[in-house]
Amino acid sequence: MKPTAILLLSCPDQPGVVATVADWVWRNGGNIVDAEQHTDLTDGIFFQRIEFELAGFGHDRSEIHQAFDAVAQRFGMQVAIQFSDERPRMAVLASKAPHCLIDLLARSKAGELPAELALVASNHPDHKDLSEFFGVPFHHLPVGDNPAEQEAAMAELLRTESIDLVVLARYMRILSADFVSQWPNRLINIHHSFLPAFVGAQPYRQAHERGVKVIGATAHYVTAELDAGPIIDQDVVRITHRDGVDELSRKGRDLEVVVLARALRAHLEHRVLPWGNRTVVFA
Amino acid sequence: MKPTAILLLSCPDQPGVVATVADWVWRNGGNIVDAEQHTDLTDGIFFQRIEFELAGFGHDRSEIHQAFDAVAQRFGMQVAIQFSDERPRMAVLASKAPHCLIDLLARSKAGELPAELALVASNHPDHKDLSEFFGVPFHHLPVGDNPAEQEAAMAELLRTESIDLVVLARYMRILSADFVSQWPNRLINIHHSFLPAFVGAQPYRQAHERGVKVIGATAHYVTAELDAGPIIDQDVVRITHRDGVDELSRKGRDLEVVVLARALRAHLEHRVLPWGNRTVVFA
Amino acid sequence: MKPTAILLLSCPDQPGVVATVADWVWRNGGNIVDAEQHTDLTDGIFFQRIEFELAGFGHDRSEIHQAFDAVAQRFGMQVAIQFSDERPRMAVLASKAPHCLIDLLARSKAGELPAELALVASNHPDHKDLSEFFGVPFHHLPVGDNPAEQEAAMAELLRTESIDLVVLARYMRILSADFVSQWPNRLINIHHSFLPAFVGAQPYRQAHERGVKVIGATAHYVTAELDAGPIIDQDVVRITHRDGVDELSRKGRDLEVVVLARALRAHLEHRVLPWGNRTVVFA
Amino acid sequence: MKPTAILLLSCPDQPGVVATVADWVWRNGGNIVDAEQHTDLTDGIFFQRIEFELAGFGHDRSEIHQAFDAVAQRFGMQVAIQFSDERPRMAVLASKAPHCLIDLLARSKAGELPAELALVASNHPDHKDLSEFFGVPFHHLPVGDNPAEQEAAMAELLRTESIDLVVLARYMRILSADFVSQWPNRLINIHHSFLPAFVGAQPYRQAHERGVKVIGATAHYVTAELDAGPIIDQDVVRITHRDGVDELSRKGRDLEVVVLARALRAHLEHRVLPWGNRTVVFA
Repeated sequence: MKPTAILLLSCPDQPGVVATVADWVWRNGGNIVDAEQHTDLTDGIFFQRIEFELAGFGHDRSEIHQAFDAVAQRFGMQVAIQFSDERPRMAVLASKAPHCLIDLLARSKAGELPAELALVASNHPDHKDLSEFFGVPFHHLPVGDNPAEQEAAMAELLRTESIDLVVLARYMRILSADFVSQWPNRLINIHHSFLPAFVGAQPYRQAHERGVKVIGATAHYVTAELDAGPIIDQDVVRITHRDGVDELSRKGRDLEVVVLARALRAHLEHRVLPWGNRTVVFA
Repeated sequence: MKPTAILLLSCPDQPGVVATVADWVWRNGGNIVDAEQHTDLTDGIFFQRIEFELAGFGHDRSEIHQAFDAVAQRFGMQVAIQFSDERPRMAVLASKAPHCLIDLLARSKAGELPAELALVASNHPDHKDLSEFFGVPFHHLPVGDNPAEQEAAMAELLRTESIDLVVLARYMRILSADFVSQWPNRLINIHHSFLPAFVGAQPYRQAHERGVKVIGATAHYVTAELDAGPIIDQDVVRITHRDGVDELSRKGRDLEVVVLARALRAHLEHRVLPWGNRTVVFA
Repeated sequence: MKPTAILLLSCPDQPGVVATVADWVWRNGGNIVDAEQHTDLTDGIFFQRIEFELAGFGHDRSEIHQAFDAVAQRFGMQVAIQFSDERPRMAVLASKAPHCLIDLLARSKAGELPAELALVASNHPDHKDLSEFFGVPFHHLPVGDNPAEQEAAMAELLRTESIDLVVLARYMRILSADFVSQWPNRLINIHHSFLPAFVGAQPYRQAHERGVKVIGATAHYVTAELDAGPIIDQDVVRITHRDGVDELSRKGRDLEVVVLARALRAHLEHRVLPWGNRTVVFA
Repeated sequence: MKPTAILLLSCPDQPGVVATVADWVWRNGGNIVDAEQHTDLTDGIFFQRIEFELAGFGHDRSEIHQAFDAVAQRFGMQVAIQFSDERPRMAVLASKAPHCLIDLLARSKAGELPAELALVASNHPDHKDLSEFFGVPFHHLPVGDNPAEQEAAMAELLRTESIDLVVLARYMRILSADFVSQWPNRLINIHHSFLPAFVGAQPYRQAHERGVKVIGATAHYVTAELDAGPIIDQDVVRITHRDGVDELSRKGRDLEVVVLARALRAHLEHRVLPWGNRTVVFA
């Protein structure tokens, strides 16, 4: 794959956007290899993801934002520019359950995720050997008498390590609004229910008590309100009366792993545009 | 298929139940053609569905309950006895949306449902021709100034017609606790969300606003509390950001039809045992 | 919805296509409301679906093809032009099984399908009343001693009625290559297996004998080779050892209905581009 | 969980089997904790899985087979007896792809599989560190000039290590009929297609060329005929025209992992009864 630039655009819906953007790319020597768009008719917002090859393009990647500014101004666009060959630095936060962490370590090693898995951090020491076996530094930040201190230390670690994307891989600490605000739309959680059902603690227990016939998992961007951020992906699996809480947990684990990986991949391929409490996820 | 009797049993979990019941059937000349059981370990309750051929059985069907009483007493059992060749009288209540009604009429005509579709009733006149085309009497009970009167007339109709099972096929009236109490575990509703998410009105609109990536449908027994009764079956379908409320409704309709039919079939085959707010649904 | 034109384009992959097409639409006064594209990297083919509003467009709809010709020539494009407010004349062919036919009649009546259901034709007389209840003319073309005559009469009927799209809704006659060639990529069949498994007769029986744990349904364009045409959509449902051939048929019917309707909808919304033995199906 | 015995029975369908078996267990002091049965009406065969607590049972586990012999003889039963606290010795064979192997190692470590993962063996050296990190001995058996020698060495290893169950976790060698015959119904393979479609090499490439809209994975017992043994479990995932062979492989891996684990769990919980080319898989 040749390196590409990816523009993620949103603006009020209006005539001429598609043609103007395509023309701008083309006049600057860019070959468009993919483009998807969506118009939210309720809110009157236009969204676009447009990807073009950098080879032969008339601007250095550092200058693209400024060069595009006239188009952006004209249509009142919000613009994000990403490059396919730049790998964000990713941190995975986990607690005791290993399944999502192992999965991300294995996918990372297999080259399946376009990111640099820079570190694993946990409030428990359990996953040190595992992380290091896969060549990823492990940080143990225990929660002592003062949980706020632990959170502050975690934020400091992530800033020091220049982390672009934080993945909560069954990290069982509730994060403060202040923490969350530092990684807007760059903090992904996997919640083990089909949100908005079963918010909060022990969703499998809640599911069992309600007597549902499917259980779910939801990957979402974290916002200040618990389990209420924009959903990136979710899925379910059928269960029966034979499944107690332990079986729900076991069946749910397989789902959590896949839903988190799918959402993470969408994010890393720059296919997700959050919009209010929702997301556009291009194919 | 030869006619069979189906015992649905529940009692405190204790040794000897399975052997005693099987032995009772066998000593009375019954050939067991199917048996399933489940033990809820949390509550310590044993559930069983046992089906045996009536040909050669030592008791008339009217005497089975009494003949089994000694066993039932010994284990503290709740017992229901059904017969495979007895078809309950079923009423379908609908409003304006035709999809679930058409589906049930078509399945009934195809002989797919072991029930007698005795009547269709509606608060709107729209589906008269449709029902009658399929040979099912139609009753229009308009809601005038006094909704309670309409509900009373509906209950009266169902009682007069000796209706055993009431199916709410997108019937858009909330039923009173008094109405509901007359068909305990014999009143099935299809709700167009994956409960417990999106209780009440306009679940597709709620789903769209929350930005979920799957929508669902849930078939449940109706209880006095809205959308909170025991779930018989539920399922979901994936959606994307491209789907507005109209598309959710359209995709959801296909799901509602199938989930309701599946739940109804389970009920009519005497495979469902409600237990508190949950159900055991044998295969 | 305002009326739109939809261009379905394919050509060898080359720089400048996206920008040139968008620019052509824009310079002629068209507002692009949707655009999707795909590049098949194996074959080096570019596919695009581009939809723009006709209001204010600088060419009458009858002139668009010619006006676009210069662009098409330059890139070596195959071009199809459709209009959102033109409803193709559709014929449904059925045999004895009613489920797909009822479903299409009901969807058509509900306004869910952007087509005119012009007629139902069958080799059996069974569905006359059903079709006519839904206001659709029914034609009975029995197969007598000479099957070729019946096929010729069917082709004649479809031509006389200016049928644009033929849907085989469990029509159990194998069509000749000559018949098929008259509706290239406009003849859709539902086959009751996940193709390429279980080609030909009695796929549910084949599935039962092989002991599979899922069964499927496949909607595809019909070509001269049996069950080998381009697949538009397919899906599956889980089964168990408890399901005999009859249960497979019953479970499969619900699947056939939905898969056929989904494929038909994609076709009627001009989202399908066949390519060799495969299809591009835009979202 | 208290230790249990599990009887897997099959015999010609005939009256009295269920009652006689339940009575035998009960008279010998066994408390039945689970029982499932199935009658194949086509072949007239009865299948049963009956599980009872060993505490208080009147026979030592070594004597149960003989004690049950009179019942077995009377009904012409095939009988297998398993014990819930006996963990079969399992070997995993892998080649280069690590995903199924990592998954099984992680599940085994998490205590999710009721088996002893005794060894990993491979025709490549790649997974030595991985296996040993999870505490499982690794054996490298390279294929040199004489493939038959490598297979013989593999069989010798498995026999020497008293392996009860062999799992082919994307092991890319075709095994001889002689090898296969040594582990009848105890040799499980994961094939990366929905069998019977796409038998043999490169099923994802075959799937791409056929243009299917779903891909699948199938776990089955290995028999002498390639990819034709009894299916234990299978499942699918939807794909689109955007997915090339690489994407199919990536999406398929997540499916392979889950389908293999689900099938393996069913086998290890003694819920699978092969019957000819099919299986009964109790819930």
